[in-house]
Amino acid sequence: MPAKNIIPFVFAVPVTAEKPSLQDNTADLDRLRHALRATLPDRRPLEIPFARIVVLCRRFRQAGFSGVALVNDLPERWVLADFLSEMPATLPAMALDLGTTHLEATLVDLLTGRILSSAGCENSQIEYGADILSRIHQATNIRRQKREIDFSFIDPGLAVLQQSMVDCINTLTAELVAGCGVEAGEVRALSVSGNTTMTHLLLGLDPFHICREPYIPMVNGVEPMESRELGLILHGAAPVWIMPSIGSYFGGDLISGILASGMAASEQTRMLIDVGTNAEVVLGNRDWLIACAGAAGPALEGGVARMGMRAAPGAIEYVSIDPETYSMEVKTIDGAPARGICGSGLIDLVASLYLARIIDVRGKFRDPARENDPLRAAFMRQRLVMRDGQPSFVVVAAKDGDDEVLLEQIDLDAMIRSKAAMYAVLATLVNQVGLAFVDLAEICVAGAFGNHINPQQAITLGMLPDLDLSVYRAIGNSSLRGAEQVLLARSARQECLDIVSKITYVELNVNQEFMIRFSGARFIPHTDPSLFPTVPLFAEQKE
Amino acid sequence: MPAKNIIPFVFAVPVTAEKPSLQDNTADLDRLRHALRATLPDRRPLEIPFARIVVLCRRFRQAGFSGVALVNDLPERWVLADFLSEMPATLPAMALDLGTTHLEATLVDLLTGRILSSAGCENSQIEYGADILSRIHQATNIRRQKREIDFSFIDPGLAVLQQSMVDCINTLTAELVAGCGVEAGEVRALSVSGNTTMTHLLLGLDPFHICREPYIPMVNGVEPMESRELGLILHGAAPVWIMPSIGSYFGGDLISGILASGMAASEQTRMLIDVGTNAEVVLGNRDWLIACAGAAGPALEGGVARMGMRAAPGAIEYVSIDPETYSMEVKTIDGAPARGICGSGLIDLVASLYLARIIDVRGKFRDPARENDPLRAAFMRQRLVMRDGQPSFVVVAAKDGDDEVLLEQIDLDAMIRSKAAMYAVLATLVNQVGLAFVDLAEICVAGAFGNHINPQQAITLGMLPDLDLSVYRAIGNSSLRGAEQVLLARSARQECLDIVSKITYVELNVNQEFMIRFSGARFIPHTDPSLFPTVPLFAEQKE
Repeated sequence: MPAKNIIPFVFAVPVTAEKPSLQDNTADLDRLRHALRATLPDRRPLEIPFARIVVLCRRFRQAGFSGVALVNDLPERWVLADFLSEMPATLPAMALDLGTTHLEATLVDLLTGRILSSAGCENSQIEYGADILSRIHQATNIRRQKREIDFSFIDPGLAVLQQSMVDCINTLTAELVAGCGVEAGEVRALSVSGNTTMTHLLLGLDPFHICREPYIPMVNGVEPMESRELGLILHGAAPVWIMPSIGSYFGGDLISGILASGMAASEQTRMLIDVGTNAEVVLGNRDWLIACAGAAGPALEGGVARMGMRAAPGAIEYVSIDPETYSMEVKTIDGAPARGICGSGLIDLVASLYLARIIDVRGKFRDPARENDPLRAAFMRQRLVMRDGQPSFVVVAAKDGDDEVLLEQIDLDAMIRSKAAMYAVLATLVNQVGLAFVDLAEICVAGAFGNHINPQQAITLGMLPDLDLSVYRAIGNSSLRGAEQVLLARSARQECLDIVSKITYVELNVNQEFMIRFSGARFIPHTDPSLFPTVPLFAEQKE
Repeated sequence: MPAKNIIPFVFAVPVTAEKPSLQDNTADLDRLRHALRATLPDRRPLEIPFARIVVLCRRFRQAGFSGVALVNDLPERWVLADFLSEMPATLPAMALDLGTTHLEATLVDLLTGRILSSAGCENSQIEYGADILSRIHQATNIRRQKREIDFSFIDPGLAVLQQSMVDCINTLTAELVAGCGVEAGEVRALSVSGNTTMTHLLLGLDPFHICREPYIPMVNGVEPMESRELGLILHGAAPVWIMPSIGSYFGGDLISGILASGMAASEQTRMLIDVGTNAEVVLGNRDWLIACAGAAGPALEGGVARMGMRAAPGAIEYVSIDPETYSMEVKTIDGAPARGICGSGLIDLVASLYLARIIDVRGKFRDPARENDPLRAAFMRQRLVMRDGQPSFVVVAAKDGDDEVLLEQIDLDAMIRSKAAMYAVLATLVNQVGLAFVDLAEICVAGAFGNHINPQQAITLGMLPDLDLSVYRAIGNSSLRGAEQVLLARSARQECLDIVSKITYVELNVNQEFMIRFSGARFIPHTDPSLFPTVPLFAEQKE
């Protein structure tokens, strides 16, 4: 029996009962229940689902009234899910990061905590709409045509999306188990971290009101359901943990990230930055948590620039321009021919352009004709071109039939807005609780963004605060890490619920302070350069 | 809100929540949960079944976030089942006595406790076997042929019986609701009192071990399941209360009877006698309960005598023979032509034959040739005939093509054994706890048997103890009454569980005292006539 706080979501308990006799004619199920009850570490109710009674009693008898019970540790009760004749070699469970565009999953052994395999795939719902809003529309348009529907059933449009997501998860499950010699039916639990809309679509819940004022989800927290209720190919009685959300724009993926960052258990104050479609930021410690979300993300994920793309082969992920020699280096993911530029490449590029004085503090391309430095002027004449009537920078020239990769002025403008929004979000949030950046013990940067960006370049742009680089920590796919943690320990599951109950959400779209800070941050690095002492200043700022 | 102890199985709670706004963007389900939670009388967990979330949220919104929640009050938790826009006129629930041969049901309004309608029908499983053993055989014979079955599914033989029973209940439900203007889908709960085998067959549980030593049922107590899990036509989320049993031969029907008798809540000691296929007897008060079952029943239910039949039109239910004039009166149920004789008629008949000295203390027909009283001798010559080589008594002569109704010596012998077993059971049980019959405040006699028998005649035979007739109370279909009570009050549901936990079951088949008492009781009224001071003694006893 593990210590109470590290009880996994499903755990295996050896159970031995007396055999029946004329002196002890207790019913099979009661015999099993009593023997199991004696081994459970607390007195919460023990539920035996009606649908499991026949199989439980048969296996209990076949095993000679002695074997191993599999018990689901739900928030308010125990659920007896299965009975095995002996302790299994592994007890696989699946952790899933259910992203809008991408799914990532691992198979975890609940007996040892070991990762058995991992896999990822594109969210197959993309065929019904690349972004959340188009999927919400898809899910609800049929409902609006047929008003007299039978409310007992999921709407047809929603059912299509739910099935698509389930198919996608089932395919991923098959891939996960293929590599490690288990059957999908042997996967005994699932945990899912997803944003509020993805969670609704998986559960077959109507997301109609999520994107309409006052932005009300159908559910935030939902009790674990059984895998078979969703149509998954895991074991039918596998409990499914859905990471709770705290609103339409603050989903379970971020709760999972907070859990994985460790900040909600930390004495010192930390910050978590998760850049996806939105920039979501959380600040706090074990006593309090404050969070906000802002539309700072798209440019940083490569979603705004015309040549922007996700971090994938052919995406420019690294750029440097020598400010003395103007020699320029570009690296793509996997060294493939350049097809576009991802978030980290964009930050590198724009920071390099600033340091090489190709762009000014407002993020505008400078005029080569007014340039005094001959080397820089030559570089600018070579790289700056007019396309569609606006100045553009040639990152990679067309070659061997591959298109050129351009950074247009319009992309630069979007990038400046995004970085300004990001900095304004961070500064506003820290100020809300009367702290300064220097009070932070750590800034965790989650996701692909966190793994790829160079914090120094982000500081140069004035996107992240000018702190010692040791303060920054890339924590990878924290949404998936949190999902793994809830599979393995009751304390993690409890912490999720605690996070939800103690977090305060700040709405920045209507925040006056945010708007002022946003305006001040629309320069490189900032209107007030004293905030960025390590970033070089150039003549125009000193003037 | 009713007082806690009279909360019905499903109860209707008015719930009003604040409407959503930008200042309060709580999710629909959480909004409903919090508003409901505040109105519930205790802090037990509130479960919202996953399958009900969509319909609950929709109806909550459609009702403008104010209406009536229907909440199931289960032993360890609340379950939110539905949400209505306003308080319904009635809240129908079904109580069912699930007998081996016959089903009886009532529809109860949970808002008022009023009986809305009642109905009964034959158990359609009879086509698969008249008695329990043949049905257990039917349920399991297919299993024994196919050993490698998929344990996830109910055995085919069992599935046929389960479906037959469900069809039967559904037909009965349709009949119940037809009379009172509600739909089957509006019936919000079900309670079922049945013996252990019938309960297993309804639930699709394997009864294989019930009739094999050491006689182990699969379950005794089972948590309420949803109607849809059984395939019933009630509302799909209607909770089904299965009366717990305490062993293979002591079923939920008797627990229900104990509840209905009130003995488990009584300060004084009472006895309950329920004669069906077995005679089941319970003794006790609010502090203790002791019970036993014996094979005393068949003759008393009309099941042993060749002319025996259930209490139905044409059954002889009343017989009297004037011991002076030897005029004989016979009444049949509904006055229909006599087709046979039911239990109460048999008791009347045999007691009358004894008082008229047609039979002797051993229950043997006396010899008319040795009879001194000329009137009696004439009566005996007229009525006593030889049939199939044994003396028989013509209760009703053949007439107008209707067959004669006979009481054969073999029937008499069976009757004497049954009455002796009954008395021995009662005496042994009372003696087990150091009491005498005079210590009993009340003897409740359940069922059709209780409604029809004349306790005075049963005393004459020495079947029931010779107590003042006011001690005897006929309580009717106590199995059905108990089922109604659990629908209406939490205290009744709790009392069922208390009864199970405090009752002691005595096995009389292996009891030496019982065997001695049985031998002593095989006379009319008894070997020791001092036990029956009000019963006339005749010469042969005085000799």
